[in-house]
Amino acid sequence: VNYRDRLDIIADILQVADQPARKTQIMYQANLSHSLLQKYLAEIVEADLVSFEVETNSYQLTFKGQEFLQAYKNYSKTNKVTKRYLNNLASKRRLLEEMCSKQATDL
Amino acid sequence: VNYRDRLDIIADILQVADQPARKTQIMYQANLSHSLLQKYLAEIVEADLVSFEVETNSYQLTFKGQEFLQAYKNYSKTNKVTKRYLNNLASKRRLLEEMCSKQATDL
Repeated sequence: VNYRDRLDIIADILQVADQPARKTQIMYQANLSHSLLQKYLAEIVEADLVSFEVETNSYQLTFKGQEFLQAYKNYSKTNKVTKRYLNNLASKRRLLEEMCSKQATDL
Repeated sequence: VNYRDRLDIIADILQVADQPARKTQIMYQANLSHSLLQKYLAEIVEADLVSFEVETNSYQLTFKGQEFLQAYKNYSKTNKVTKRYLNNLASKRRLLEEMCSKQATDL
């Protein structure tokens, strides 16, 4: 399982708010409990990543929110590549450790 | 400071033993205490990475030891690249965290 951290959750919310969206819509599409969504919405409105439009009762991505999403996508890519490097490194390390451990019967 | 771990120390010893080398020589060139060197030499002789030649009273890299050194160099390169990726990832993450933290006065 891949648990979402704070940044992942914020990115998921912003993704939904790319089109003006109401709270319930965000809640279901971003798969969050009502209380968690409340907490995050307060934070990201305060950080100016989304704005609340009173007339339509909906949340919408700001320019800064768009920038965040771009930067998040870039970060995600780097994250994937880094994980691949870490796995590769770990297997190379295991090989070295085997080579300098006590010899089993040679094949 | 960059502390050497077990694999680094073994690689340093093998590097010295690339040419037949006596215990004192290895001790100084690999920068190890006598007791640590004893411990490591016992391990790497047992693992067949170096062999001890009684006639010349010296240690010498085996074929498997050469293979280890090759694999270690490759591992070191991957290690450096991975560290660069990790640093890059951390700075991208910091940027995102700043973007979703409470707004300071806009510049």
